[in-house]
Amino acid sequence: MGVKSTRDLWGTRREGDVAMATRSKDAYTKSLQDGRVVYYKGERVGDVTSHPILKTAVEHAALEYELTEDPRHHDLLTYTLPGRQEPFSRYFKIPENAEDLLRRRAIIELGTRAGGTFFLIIKEIGSDCLFALNVISQRLDAKYGTNYHERVMRYYEHCRDHDLAMAVAQTDVKGDRSLHPHQQEHPDYYVRIVDETRDGIVVRGAKAHTTNTVCANELMVIPTRTLGPEDQEYAVAFAVPMDAKGLKLIVSPFSHTDHNTFHHPVSARHHLLETLTIFDDVLVPWDRVFLKGEWDFAGPLALTFVQFHRFTAVSYKAPLLDFLVGAAELVAEANGIRRAAHVREKLVKLIAYAETVRALTKAAAWECKMLDGRIAVPDPVTTNMAKWYFANNFHQHVAYLQDIAGGLLVTGPAEEDVKNPETAGYISKYLGGKKGVPTEDRLRLLNLIRDLTTSDIGGYNEILSIHAEGSLEAQKLTIAMEYDTKPSVDYVKGLIGLG
Amino acid sequence: MGVKSTRDLWGTRREGDVAMATRSKDAYTKSLQDGRVVYYKGERVGDVTSHPILKTAVEHAALEYELTEDPRHHDLLTYTLPGRQEPFSRYFKIPENAEDLLRRRAIIELGTRAGGTFFLIIKEIGSDCLFALNVISQRLDAKYGTNYHERVMRYYEHCRDHDLAMAVAQTDVKGDRSLHPHQQEHPDYYVRIVDETRDGIVVRGAKAHTTNTVCANELMVIPTRTLGPEDQEYAVAFAVPMDAKGLKLIVSPFSHTDHNTFHHPVSARHHLLETLTIFDDVLVPWDRVFLKGEWDFAGPLALTFVQFHRFTAVSYKAPLLDFLVGAAELVAEANGIRRAAHVREKLVKLIAYAETVRALTKAAAWECKMLDGRIAVPDPVTTNMAKWYFANNFHQHVAYLQDIAGGLLVTGPAEEDVKNPETAGYISKYLGGKKGVPTEDRLRLLNLIRDLTTSDIGGYNEILSIHAEGSLEAQKLTIAMEYDTKPSVDYVKGLIGLG
Amino acid sequence: MGVKSTRDLWGTRREGDVAMATRSKDAYTKSLQDGRVVYYKGERVGDVTSHPILKTAVEHAALEYELTEDPRHHDLLTYTLPGRQEPFSRYFKIPENAEDLLRRRAIIELGTRAGGTFFLIIKEIGSDCLFALNVISQRLDAKYGTNYHERVMRYYEHCRDHDLAMAVAQTDVKGDRSLHPHQQEHPDYYVRIVDETRDGIVVRGAKAHTTNTVCANELMVIPTRTLGPEDQEYAVAFAVPMDAKGLKLIVSPFSHTDHNTFHHPVSARHHLLETLTIFDDVLVPWDRVFLKGEWDFAGPLALTFVQFHRFTAVSYKAPLLDFLVGAAELVAEANGIRRAAHVREKLVKLIAYAETVRALTKAAAWECKMLDGRIAVPDPVTTNMAKWYFANNFHQHVAYLQDIAGGLLVTGPAEEDVKNPETAGYISKYLGGKKGVPTEDRLRLLNLIRDLTTSDIGGYNEILSIHAEGSLEAQKLTIAMEYDTKPSVDYVKGLIGLG
Amino acid sequence: MGVKSTRDLWGTRREGDVAMATRSKDAYTKSLQDGRVVYYKGERVGDVTSHPILKTAVEHAALEYELTEDPRHHDLLTYTLPGRQEPFSRYFKIPENAEDLLRRRAIIELGTRAGGTFFLIIKEIGSDCLFALNVISQRLDAKYGTNYHERVMRYYEHCRDHDLAMAVAQTDVKGDRSLHPHQQEHPDYYVRIVDETRDGIVVRGAKAHTTNTVCANELMVIPTRTLGPEDQEYAVAFAVPMDAKGLKLIVSPFSHTDHNTFHHPVSARHHLLETLTIFDDVLVPWDRVFLKGEWDFAGPLALTFVQFHRFTAVSYKAPLLDFLVGAAELVAEANGIRRAAHVREKLVKLIAYAETVRALTKAAAWECKMLDGRIAVPDPVTTNMAKWYFANNFHQHVAYLQDIAGGLLVTGPAEEDVKNPETAGYISKYLGGKKGVPTEDRLRLLNLIRDLTTSDIGGYNEILSIHAEGSLEAQKLTIAMEYDTKPSVDYVKGLIGLG
Repeated sequence: MGVKSTRDLWGTRREGDVAMATRSKDAYTKSLQDGRVVYYKGERVGDVTSHPILKTAVEHAALEYELTEDPRHHDLLTYTLPGRQEPFSRYFKIPENAEDLLRRRAIIELGTRAGGTFFLIIKEIGSDCLFALNVISQRLDAKYGTNYHERVMRYYEHCRDHDLAMAVAQTDVKGDRSLHPHQQEHPDYYVRIVDETRDGIVVRGAKAHTTNTVCANELMVIPTRTLGPEDQEYAVAFAVPMDAKGLKLIVSPFSHTDHNTFHHPVSARHHLLETLTIFDDVLVPWDRVFLKGEWDFAGPLALTFVQFHRFTAVSYKAPLLDFLVGAAELVAEANGIRRAAHVREKLVKLIAYAETVRALTKAAAWECKMLDGRIAVPDPVTTNMAKWYFANNFHQHVAYLQDIAGGLLVTGPAEEDVKNPETAGYISKYLGGKKGVPTEDRLRLLNLIRDLTTSDIGGYNEILSIHAEGSLEAQKLTIAMEYDTKPSVDYVKGLIGLG
Repeated sequence: MGVKSTRDLWGTRREGDVAMATRSKDAYTKSLQDGRVVYYKGERVGDVTSHPILKTAVEHAALEYELTEDPRHHDLLTYTLPGRQEPFSRYFKIPENAEDLLRRRAIIELGTRAGGTFFLIIKEIGSDCLFALNVISQRLDAKYGTNYHERVMRYYEHCRDHDLAMAVAQTDVKGDRSLHPHQQEHPDYYVRIVDETRDGIVVRGAKAHTTNTVCANELMVIPTRTLGPEDQEYAVAFAVPMDAKGLKLIVSPFSHTDHNTFHHPVSARHHLLETLTIFDDVLVPWDRVFLKGEWDFAGPLALTFVQFHRFTAVSYKAPLLDFLVGAAELVAEANGIRRAAHVREKLVKLIAYAETVRALTKAAAWECKMLDGRIAVPDPVTTNMAKWYFANNFHQHVAYLQDIAGGLLVTGPAEEDVKNPETAGYISKYLGGKKGVPTEDRLRLLNLIRDLTTSDIGGYNEILSIHAEGSLEAQKLTIAMEYDTKPSVDYVKGLIGLG
Repeated sequence: MGVKSTRDLWGTRREGDVAMATRSKDAYTKSLQDGRVVYYKGERVGDVTSHPILKTAVEHAALEYELTEDPRHHDLLTYTLPGRQEPFSRYFKIPENAEDLLRRRAIIELGTRAGGTFFLIIKEIGSDCLFALNVISQRLDAKYGTNYHERVMRYYEHCRDHDLAMAVAQTDVKGDRSLHPHQQEHPDYYVRIVDETRDGIVVRGAKAHTTNTVCANELMVIPTRTLGPEDQEYAVAFAVPMDAKGLKLIVSPFSHTDHNTFHHPVSARHHLLETLTIFDDVLVPWDRVFLKGEWDFAGPLALTFVQFHRFTAVSYKAPLLDFLVGAAELVAEANGIRRAAHVREKLVKLIAYAETVRALTKAAAWECKMLDGRIAVPDPVTTNMAKWYFANNFHQHVAYLQDIAGGLLVTGPAEEDVKNPETAGYISKYLGGKKGVPTEDRLRLLNLIRDLTTSDIGGYNEILSIHAEGSLEAQKLTIAMEYDTKPSVDYVKGLIGLG
Repeated sequence: MGVKSTRDLWGTRREGDVAMATRSKDAYTKSLQDGRVVYYKGERVGDVTSHPILKTAVEHAALEYELTEDPRHHDLLTYTLPGRQEPFSRYFKIPENAEDLLRRRAIIELGTRAGGTFFLIIKEIGSDCLFALNVISQRLDAKYGTNYHERVMRYYEHCRDHDLAMAVAQTDVKGDRSLHPHQQEHPDYYVRIVDETRDGIVVRGAKAHTTNTVCANELMVIPTRTLGPEDQEYAVAFAVPMDAKGLKLIVSPFSHTDHNTFHHPVSARHHLLETLTIFDDVLVPWDRVFLKGEWDFAGPLALTFVQFHRFTAVSYKAPLLDFLVGAAELVAEANGIRRAAHVREKLVKLIAYAETVRALTKAAAWECKMLDGRIAVPDPVTTNMAKWYFANNFHQHVAYLQDIAGGLLVTGPAEEDVKNPETAGYISKYLGGKKGVPTEDRLRLLNLIRDLTTSDIGGYNEILSIHAEGSLEAQKLTIAMEYDTKPSVDYVKGLIGLG
């Protein structure tokens, strides 16, 4: 389908789409051939869907559309609206209760399992952002008499009705992290409004590590932090299509490996792309501007987005955690050490780690709060506890798996050696494990563990664990802010006869 | 009320009780004056309700009856049955769904808050045991054609209808813990059947650290572990009233302190009693025998009880954890260090600790399993994760509170010094903290923290954290047994093209 | 001997002492009968050496003199000086190299072992302070042309030659810990100079948790923190005899238990006393004034003392850590679980904990630094790492021991029950453990573990672990200040071609 | 130089070598061109010194010879022998006291710093093995009347006098790790003797992850575990030159990255090679056989080697730990967060981690034990504590550095983007950090951190931390075996009046 220009943005839906708001995988893929400006390893990429490296990320993202087309998942992955015949992608379902959030968790887990432990992200983060904009725009209008809410809702319907793939750029490049935006050496270290015309605003700056912009139709941009009155020009939220003039993506080469599926069973097939996302004086039409100078709403918007997005985060971690458990069990078996006391201890720790994150995620849904009586947000304290617990413990639990797997993780043979008749026999003979486990299966399993824990992608996973969706400090801060200690304080006072 | 002899055990309910199955506090207290055999510090105690030390435990337990009589809590603490007018204590409500379990959690938390962080236990553990006997007796009958289930249900109704206070003795004294019961040096290291008569069975042995037997009307006894065929005589479950002939209680002096409420704001008013519970050839009538030699059901009974009881455990920990949070907040304020970075970090850790245990407890209820389609049991893996997480982290989190509180915890003045005119002024002047916090309040707060964390009772709390309701190892084992790794294993196999 | 008044302070040594600078236990004990003002539980204590509770602390401290008199330890515990015939207590040996520090560590460990894991302290802390005063006074004189160093050295010789027992008061009561001394609500929250006369200075204020003042002859007072120019009046260091007018001690009741050696095998015989130490306008003669207003030396003095004293701290922890190891081994054996995998794991953790502290302590000595080319101070970074490691891990390692020991720690019988013929048999029979371990021995061992880890004294130990000799934060800060990261930074720069 | 055949092994030294036992870098490099059988990614490698990938490892190893030739290090890196004029490489110095071990530690640290945190290994491990063979061979002769010791000493002199590069193969491929060698499905899962001829023994089997065989002249082979009488054929130790017939090396491709020094500042220049080392019926002449069937000495030999080798391990970790400290400090500065409380906390943790390992390593030397009164071995308990502490905490401390460094670690630009004029300006502008830190320097620093912690090499480092030189379990076991708990047990017994 594609959104070729901003002119027909709010145009009426095309006829062929009437009975089906969800798109086909092909329609999605074609929609990315829109002339977007993408650089990869020093070269401008013409078509991201056919580039040898980038297409893997596109195919990974396309799984979302493929799964939705799959009759087995159709009911879970779509929902309907009163007065509308066609089913919509469930990602767009505005959560109204715990049940909605639990289903949202379930579809994120489903997509991520299909994605080989990497989430598909092409709907998750965008809908998180739409929910936050929904809430905040109404509050903005209430305070300032603006009409942001209508803009947001029209944009939301546009994305929903066209089943668009969305990316969100939040983290500014930040320069000196101890300074406020207006204090920085360069005024552009945070994205800001540099001009205002009849048609809209002009924005400049760059956002760091934006995931899967390359695979999106739409890019939403929101502030990354609380701002003060002197940071007014940095208080900006908006959306642009990926082919917007002045929008440029520099893809990092570090978030993927090669396509050898023996060496990299998962990352050869699935990976995300991270971009330095540059706004080189991009014009944003008025109906896509969602915050403009109201600095007191920058923090609330950033935070509300994060409340939804950290729930997404802890939802999509589940398959990676299941991998840790399943791989530990299998490799313990293959190595013949499944009954060793220390192995059983580590296995229980891995189980408790995985299931504690999952249980806390569900608990966040069960204990959801209603924002403005309209939209259900997962309980912020529980969500952040889940994320913090996950992030604080990831490296250690990876170490448990590595410990069970053994040194062969980094000393194993190349695929070429396995195939070379001069060496194949030695490898097959000597790298066997417990009787009954074929050497090749054992090697595949070790390669999988290497791929996800000790390779470039393993490093990527480690960094994701502590930096994606907010740092450890951010989660700590949120818990401190959101938790009401008064009941506990009152209880303690009561115990000593005070108050 | 009291249950004076086993003869009228199943007798019809008395008239005066018709409109009220729940007892008054007084009725409860009087019921304990039944000639039970109790030793405390070398002396036989005549009346536990008037003994200077023991009566504090009785009054603590009696809170359960007091709360139920309180109109503010009546609805929460009682429930009704079809065809019966009177309300029953909600502890007896057989859980049928998540809602029942969540309410059960709530009443345990309520009672424990009233008990100054110590749970009342006088209904909790007994009903846990009754639920387990309910489940297992039916399975026993199905396999062996026995009539245990009817016995159990009549006994259950007896307890419920008379609103009895119950204790459960599970942990045998064990001797050499690496040996099975029949391998022990002494055959009586586990409670066993030594004789069988027309009237019933005769049991001998001792159970260790049984909580609040002294305050109970009824004592239920179940096995503590899985047994083999050679341990048949140890496969025994039954109930006896506390005045049963041959039943003797030796109370440990280590679970309480003195009655100085300045030094011990909580433990001067609330404490539990732990007994070495001796069965000196006690005759148990047939209708109170719930397992007799069916060794293959010893493990399932022990485990099913524990599944309910660990949920009780993680429910009653909440007020103690709230105390850690509230006390840390207050003492940080009193010391003027609330904004120190390390204090804020520790406070967030305490919050996350408390709320993770609470959230996992609720999650265990939300994800409950139906046993035999009849009785809802909290999800065993989640319950045990909650308990294990609590137990693995208690000492460290106590340390965080102690760190914030400061050394005065163990170097503070005696109440007598505070009152002595020669020293009162110095203390008042020099032990002040932040402006606006009265010295006396600061001392009371420090005394509270000492009482619950660095005194004899603090030690009791530490031991409880790792030994009560099953050891760390027991929880680890349960998680390993109950968790199905197959989905994770299958997922990992799928990732490498196996299976 | 006793130092009755400040007048004869520098008096010539008495004849009988000529051949022996070290005192007898009796001489020491008698020296405490000097009319000092001590309050305990609301009463003024006439003679601390005969008070039923306090005398235990005196006897504990007296062990230092007893050990020195013991021919087996004489060589280790004394040293000689050129030109002097008599041996002096080795505590006074000014360390000049690693060997001196290693011997100092050895005598502290020896005394603490004799003290049942509690250090004797009556020489340790005082000599730490004398070394610091030695260093700082010389620097003071160099900057200000004062004559502090001579005063300090005469005072040092006085203590050494009379073999005095010494206490050090450093920690002020502090009020609001976030404020500097001069900012406090009360000006006396830190000890300060309130007047100056021809005879000396007059000081007012209070020091918190001063250990064993009650058992000392001399009390040295030094600042607790870095001060600024506005805190000048708080920049004061001095020494007074314990019978100084206006000096008053309020003993905390929380650092000891009763004298029942069955229930408290160690603390019935050994304990320390903590006092709130009040200076009610105490006159300090000039020759005992070691800092007066030079605020820029308050921090250096505090820190230098701490550098010696934290080495003392990590030295005296060794017996407590050995206790953890030995008790774990013995109780695992008594319970029959010595071969369980988790028990072996915990035992190794306890060993590694104990020996890491010991090895780091020795390493601090081996890597000692020379202060001003004269006095060897243990390497500050290593010393603080040792202390921090100890303090960060104490609670958890106590938990390991408690885990192995079992719940009987807090549910065991009273001595009276063990002796009561009605119950003795049951206890003897049922509380046995592994074959061959007498029940009484097992109970004694459990009582020992309770005494040192789960009782009031256990709480005292926990608080000591994180607060004595500086808090966790203080150690962290010292490491940050003292460690030179430049070599590491340069190395990293070199790796990327910078610098 | 090269050792072309086994025939001239004990041949007289060549004339040109007389005045110089240490070799030049060139002589070393040439010595590797000996026809050894090496496979890399499916191909037989003709000359390892010119192969594009392998030569980097050769050059890395050659640093050892380069450093020794450097006059600045000559004294440290060499030693002399009585009666011999020429200096020998200090690695061959048989340790006789703490001083020797401390110097050994120093030269290992020196080499590893030069190696960019990767140790050179080409002498370290070989000399560890020679020391162990020295000790064990003498014990073997004493028990069995064999002449192993003479063989070992001649071989030792050969290596020393020719300054040979040595590798050690210890870890067998193991098959099912829960089974003894003779119980395995394949008899060759552990290297074993398959034949015995007049000339020597014939060995078959494979050793896993042998480091830097490719760069060695000599390969020593020793057992990996304790053996029983049924494992007699597996009790074998010997040495072969790298061109021995039947010896085949399959190099793992996972221990190195590419040669882009921007992306991989260290690993582009330095890496180790790990091989699957195959013994396809290799003939070992008698004078190179050091154990043959004496199964009771397999364990002692393995363990003695490990005692030396774990000391090597904790010695060579120092530069990697220094890197963690230095990189954290620099990147905190570059990001402008050096004063954030959590950053300072993490920095102190990194310092304490690095210096605790270093201090324990030195302590192991200071407390060395004399083996048979001849050879100083680092204290085994302390060495293993150091190793265990390092290994248990590596992942978590890497996480601290990654936390400070930020997400750009895995989302940064490629070198090609930095150079592309279309994108260079954006990168330079937007990826700046704190004022005064050039963007390029910041990127180099981030690339360094990625290289060593989040890339393939980062994964290699993680695996090394827990598997190299023995697993976590092996260290735990060694501590348990080597530590004498008797003094602690006796102390505890004394405290309760036993024994």
